[in-house]
Amino acid sequence: MQKVLLARGMRDFLPDAMRRRRRVIETVREVFERFGFEPLETPALERLETLEGKYGEEGDRLIYRVLKRGEGGEEGESDLGLRYDLTVPLARVVAMNPDLPLPLRRWQIQPVWRADRPQRGRFREFLQCDVDVVGSPSPVADAECLAVVDAALTALGLGAFEVRLNHRGILRALAEAAGAGDRETDVLVALDKLDKVGRGGVEAELAARGLPPEAAGRLWSVLDRAGPPGALPALEGLSAVNAGLPETGRTAVDTLRRVLAHAADLGVPAGRIRFDPTLARGLDYYTGAVFETMVVAPHVGSISGGGRYDRLVGVFLGRDIPAVGVSLGLERILAVLEETQGAGGERPAARVLVAALDEACLPAALRAAAFLRAAGEAVVIAPDPLPMRKVLRQADQRRVPFAAVVGPDEAAAGTTFLRRLADGAQWILPAADLLAHLGEDAPEPGPPG
Amino acid sequence: MQKVLLARGMRDFLPDAMRRRRRVIETVREVFERFGFEPLETPALERLETLEGKYGEEGDRLIYRVLKRGEGGEEGESDLGLRYDLTVPLARVVAMNPDLPLPLRRWQIQPVWRADRPQRGRFREFLQCDVDVVGSPSPVADAECLAVVDAALTALGLGAFEVRLNHRGILRALAEAAGAGDRETDVLVALDKLDKVGRGGVEAELAARGLPPEAAGRLWSVLDRAGPPGALPALEGLSAVNAGLPETGRTAVDTLRRVLAHAADLGVPAGRIRFDPTLARGLDYYTGAVFETMVVAPHVGSISGGGRYDRLVGVFLGRDIPAVGVSLGLERILAVLEETQGAGGERPAARVLVAALDEACLPAALRAAAFLRAAGEAVVIAPDPLPMRKVLRQADQRRVPFAAVVGPDEAAAGTTFLRRLADGAQWILPAADLLAHLGEDAPEPGPPG
Repeated sequence: MQKVLLARGMRDFLPDAMRRRRRVIETVREVFERFGFEPLETPALERLETLEGKYGEEGDRLIYRVLKRGEGGEEGESDLGLRYDLTVPLARVVAMNPDLPLPLRRWQIQPVWRADRPQRGRFREFLQCDVDVVGSPSPVADAECLAVVDAALTALGLGAFEVRLNHRGILRALAEAAGAGDRETDVLVALDKLDKVGRGGVEAELAARGLPPEAAGRLWSVLDRAGPPGALPALEGLSAVNAGLPETGRTAVDTLRRVLAHAADLGVPAGRIRFDPTLARGLDYYTGAVFETMVVAPHVGSISGGGRYDRLVGVFLGRDIPAVGVSLGLERILAVLEETQGAGGERPAARVLVAALDEACLPAALRAAAFLRAAGEAVVIAPDPLPMRKVLRQADQRRVPFAAVVGPDEAAAGTTFLRRLADGAQWILPAADLLAHLGEDAPEPGPPG
Repeated sequence: MQKVLLARGMRDFLPDAMRRRRRVIETVREVFERFGFEPLETPALERLETLEGKYGEEGDRLIYRVLKRGEGGEEGESDLGLRYDLTVPLARVVAMNPDLPLPLRRWQIQPVWRADRPQRGRFREFLQCDVDVVGSPSPVADAECLAVVDAALTALGLGAFEVRLNHRGILRALAEAAGAGDRETDVLVALDKLDKVGRGGVEAELAARGLPPEAAGRLWSVLDRAGPPGALPALEGLSAVNAGLPETGRTAVDTLRRVLAHAADLGVPAGRIRFDPTLARGLDYYTGAVFETMVVAPHVGSISGGGRYDRLVGVFLGRDIPAVGVSLGLERILAVLEETQGAGGERPAARVLVAALDEACLPAALRAAAFLRAAGEAVVIAPDPLPMRKVLRQADQRRVPFAAVVGPDEAAAGTTFLRRLADGAQWILPAADLLAHLGEDAPEPGPPG
């Protein structure tokens, strides 16, 4: 007998967990389709060169590499990697399919893999739920991303969440304001950690990256105009920060103003979106607006994030195609729903459990099951004959509301014994009458038939 | 600009292909649930030792190996592999979860990966659609596998298909009858190729494996009793072969007789199941009944296969748990459906395309779109202002039946211009009246409102 273990950071989803996941996925998918997004899927394995160099240094390190199989590859060589996100594969698809009508609006719900250090709530395989609009530079497309997330989270019943919005152009202007216009990435990486390490931590990081001490001071003097992140409504925060930014930041501010106005027209409630000039989002490929959604309580971090990446398709195609997209963090959303709405998912495996009391009664039981299934009912068959108490225990264990049992008497008379588990009501019926008695899981007000 | 290629043997699924796939998957899933199977998912990555040694020599060679990440692994070392099928992961899940109520009936639809040589219709990533009953030795469970496949293929509209049925015990008895009872695997592997290489090929294979020439002759003398594969109805074929088998084959024959009877009770049409004493199924882990479904035309090979594997869970658990399952070959089923029913899948991306004629009209257009979405309609928004002819071309290209356009006149009057593409009927309406006009894609008999 061999050791039996899951690979580290991996999970199985047993039936109850699967039902919870499927319910959330279906809700999200319906919202995506209501917003006119179309389905797309890409393979788990991509050529390494497709993946590498898009996610930043740390991202590249976390890509799972797959060994070459046969075909004369050197032992230990790798030319394939597991999908790290759904955005780079989308950019590849757009580059490879010049006939796709643009703008392409696609949704994609598939797992991605990251060889991250496993920790509570962080896994090495997890589902991403993405929508993207490829082929339009319009702020309407950015606003659509905000609106679709808002609609999806609302449809899931997540009440208290807020969106943080920023623009890479504002971060560039901030770096300039700090006198470090040529060190934009250093400023961005340092600022991105503000939430976790505070101002002191950011200052240390900037110093470690060789920026002069006065750079941080200049940063804070611009950022302080808007107060603590999210203190001012988005538009006012934008105006306050704008006043402290060099000219180069103005276009970005103007774009965000339009994104906010379009989002409001698309029905995103006022006050849901907050401007956060320190929001950077880790990934290398963003070029414009960036955004992220946080649940107000419980504190699980970001449950959705995205932004504009106008140059990623160009890496594959040789000419740029503007694009913007957003990803829903299904795992964290499920964690929030469990905490706020309870686990759920305890739905019955079927409507009826059909069983035979002995071997000779199996044919009649199977025919009854086939009859009910043909009528559209979900039916579990107990494959081995069982005594009545075990039938009822199995039905109970699986939350199946009805048990239909054939014993010798029923087999002889061509009938089935039907029992409703909720109240123990029971009937002996010919198969044709079974359906009419499966109507109600629980007792009706009047006496049962 | 970098080369832009898919990894070999991998595919993207663009929206039309995705809609076809989703329709088939949903149909299959509904049938699985009607049969009382419950959902389960396992991770793509398994420990190599979980996967290896279960699929036979060739199978092991086709497992994709993943490089160790960090954690002190040697460069080039591999301890993880990509899932090769859904059966071995299921056995691991059962062994790891002793509290799962048995029999467990689970469905699982997930991709698997095999580093096979890519060829027409064979891919390195493909979806498997499996149902299994774990925890019952009853032939009812085997019959359920036959019945659920029958119901799924019928629901998909595949008319002409037939099932080949055999039992590993019959193959054992055949090897014995050939005087090679100790060389069962050699006989099985050789016989499994009969379809492809004919009797001469099987004889050559047996000789190459060191079996005496008379072994083949003895094999044919038993098999000839049933005539060419599938010539006799299953029960008669069974009886004919049974008469030529040594005593050890009788239990297997008896089991198959019961499987056939139960399948009939479960509604599988008479004549659909054929007994084929040469059917072996490649995988190592089968122990009892094996079966495979072929489409009569077009000739695409097997579209479903499965069997009983009573010892696989024991490899992980230390004690055996009987199990039987079946897998639907989604890729081949889609190929058959395309050939017999046409590609299909050309469904509209949405019900309405909403557009603005100029920038100033965008807010009114977005509000109209938000109104329609809130009412449950699927709406695509053109993010950039477009002239009318481009709006209509985009709607046409995406098969969207209605275009709703806001120009300066409509914006001023608070109305929307609505056009039905099928017949060019058009209206100018306040938002509240839009919904009532989206009822019919094509003209109604009477004059439009």
